[in-house]
Amino acid sequence: MESNIYRLIAEDGLARRGEIKTQHGKFQTPAFMPVGTYGAVKALSPRILEDLEAEIILSNTYHLMERPGVDIIKAHGGLHNFMGWNSPILTDSGGYQVFSLSKKRTITDEGVQFFSLLNGDKRYLTPESCMQLQLDYGVDIAMVLDECTPYPIAEDAAKKSMQLSLRWADRCRKAFKTENASLFGIVQGGVFNNLREDSLGELIEINFEGYAIGGLSVGEPKEDMIRVVNHIAPMMPTEKPRYLMGVGTPLDIVKAVEAGIDMFDCVIPTRHARNGYLYTSKGIVKIRNSENKNNLEPLDLDCTCYTCSNFSRSYLHHLDKTKEMLGSTLQTIHNLHYYLSLMRNLRVSIEKGTLQTFINKFEAAWNNADSPNIVK
Amino acid sequence: MESNIYRLIAEDGLARRGEIKTQHGKFQTPAFMPVGTYGAVKALSPRILEDLEAEIILSNTYHLMERPGVDIIKAHGGLHNFMGWNSPILTDSGGYQVFSLSKKRTITDEGVQFFSLLNGDKRYLTPESCMQLQLDYGVDIAMVLDECTPYPIAEDAAKKSMQLSLRWADRCRKAFKTENASLFGIVQGGVFNNLREDSLGELIEINFEGYAIGGLSVGEPKEDMIRVVNHIAPMMPTEKPRYLMGVGTPLDIVKAVEAGIDMFDCVIPTRHARNGYLYTSKGIVKIRNSENKNNLEPLDLDCTCYTCSNFSRSYLHHLDKTKEMLGSTLQTIHNLHYYLSLMRNLRVSIEKGTLQTFINKFEAAWNNADSPNIVK
Repeated sequence: MESNIYRLIAEDGLARRGEIKTQHGKFQTPAFMPVGTYGAVKALSPRILEDLEAEIILSNTYHLMERPGVDIIKAHGGLHNFMGWNSPILTDSGGYQVFSLSKKRTITDEGVQFFSLLNGDKRYLTPESCMQLQLDYGVDIAMVLDECTPYPIAEDAAKKSMQLSLRWADRCRKAFKTENASLFGIVQGGVFNNLREDSLGELIEINFEGYAIGGLSVGEPKEDMIRVVNHIAPMMPTEKPRYLMGVGTPLDIVKAVEAGIDMFDCVIPTRHARNGYLYTSKGIVKIRNSENKNNLEPLDLDCTCYTCSNFSRSYLHHLDKTKEMLGSTLQTIHNLHYYLSLMRNLRVSIEKGTLQTFINKFEAAWNNADSPNIVK
Repeated sequence: MESNIYRLIAEDGLARRGEIKTQHGKFQTPAFMPVGTYGAVKALSPRILEDLEAEIILSNTYHLMERPGVDIIKAHGGLHNFMGWNSPILTDSGGYQVFSLSKKRTITDEGVQFFSLLNGDKRYLTPESCMQLQLDYGVDIAMVLDECTPYPIAEDAAKKSMQLSLRWADRCRKAFKTENASLFGIVQGGVFNNLREDSLGELIEINFEGYAIGGLSVGEPKEDMIRVVNHIAPMMPTEKPRYLMGVGTPLDIVKAVEAGIDMFDCVIPTRHARNGYLYTSKGIVKIRNSENKNNLEPLDLDCTCYTCSNFSRSYLHHLDKTKEMLGSTLQTIHNLHYYLSLMRNLRVSIEKGTLQTFINKFEAAWNNADSPNIVK
């Protein structure tokens, strides 16, 4: 892959409207990546994702390593063929899962030894093996193996963790030999601005095709998250993609776009959908609430998604009560449509130079969501 | 509805190729109706059903009475609007569910008193209330309330049950006042040819828009089922639709089409799909079997469905292992495509006068299905 995969199309304040090139086509930024942990976005077929105009999805290196295993994906000629998705795929490094899900793990400079969440077997992940997995998956964008610094943590410990991640990042860069995919470095350093700056500086020295902000949304107060993003995003190279990992709510995303972030992933829209928490222009609708039982209106009168065009809240409530999996599908369609429409609106606003107006309206609408059916 | 909703297009032996007219359009026969018990065909959206070229679906009067309840369906302007399906719908009468699922029930000439399977509350179903429910759902084809005669049963008891169903059928006919829908009578009489004949004769006297064979697939030997269908189907009025309720396997359907049946419904394709039993041109594939783990081929090389066009057995096996609901969706698409293609092939064969050749080939292929991966 040539080094520069990012093309800047427009700016509005710190916010950027761009396009990122991969071997499986381009995608427009700011972009939201639906999460397909096991090589499937839960409850959706690739065809529906295409209908929703999702342009890139995220999958999980660790989960795919467990099931189906890298050999089966390789035998299919890569993850794209395996899951029937022909647009870009980004994989995380698996580090986050190892650190957040596995209780017993041993971290050394070499890598991390842990126990399978599936069957308790011993597993190893090193920067080199992590790169090999992602190369074997054949993804478009791979992420370096990093230690996800926990919260809360003392500055000294956060620094040590960040430095370990840097040594691993260097080894990842050396191990990632391909013309077909890009590798992103991950800025760590907890909630400490100075550590974040150090991390970013060193990663830029190593040189990646893009840079991500990791280790946020791990329990820190939301103000800390926003402060770190606002501090570090504008320092990230302007000619390369900027990715805020695992974030977040619609408001989080709007704030981060304002700070200059280009890429996002989060399980919120898909997971919330399956649990009946649905994003609308008036706030969140909890479809399980009994007031929806007789509500003949769609989830959102302003929404043009398949679900809102064809079904009432009452029907969705009924599908939930009767445990029909169609409910999860229709609700996931709606929530992803909400997120992907938000990204489209953000892109258009940046192009027009009206981002601040859009954000003000969006925040106001969100803050005025006061129907009894709605959680702010 | 004018009395004659059936148009005969071609005949081949006893088999019939026809078209049935409803207020929501026509459908071609022989037809298979996917089952949407709670106003949703499990794991599929109406859009997918349209892609599959399903032309009519079946829903369940009793289940809809429990959830969401008739008032909510009426408020939506009927079941079509409620579930977002604009093609024909047939509802069963609920009788089968009451008799097969409810342990404590009291049958009198008036009707049946039973206890809700949902919450144990007392429920009543009379011929009149059953008709009112189906009228309120706004379906295209309603079924009379009947007593589903159990198996095994003595001839005398089968006769009494059949006679009760006839008295109810008469009351259903009187109570079903509409220009917008058709009402079908249901032939009962267990495995006794003479009782079946009596039942049919009396139903014809009452006069329905179509006639169904009920009370089969309730535990009787398959030979008895085939014998009854072969005996009674050719006696059913030629100018009206003939519907074999709750049947069956692909071979059952082929046999019944040969005997002159026009309509079928069955949960087999959809339920089997969710359990990983998948119909192919070579027999049934059990996707959970470990030999599918590394199988890069589609379920059926001869199949053109979305699933077979895009995904390997290995991927479906993986979705099953990881409990991704996409697996149920993709597998339901495949099994329904199998059933609906079978019906298309039967229709074409009847038109061409080559049904016997088709049946011989179909049976031979089924009987030769001897791969270790396949259950006959």
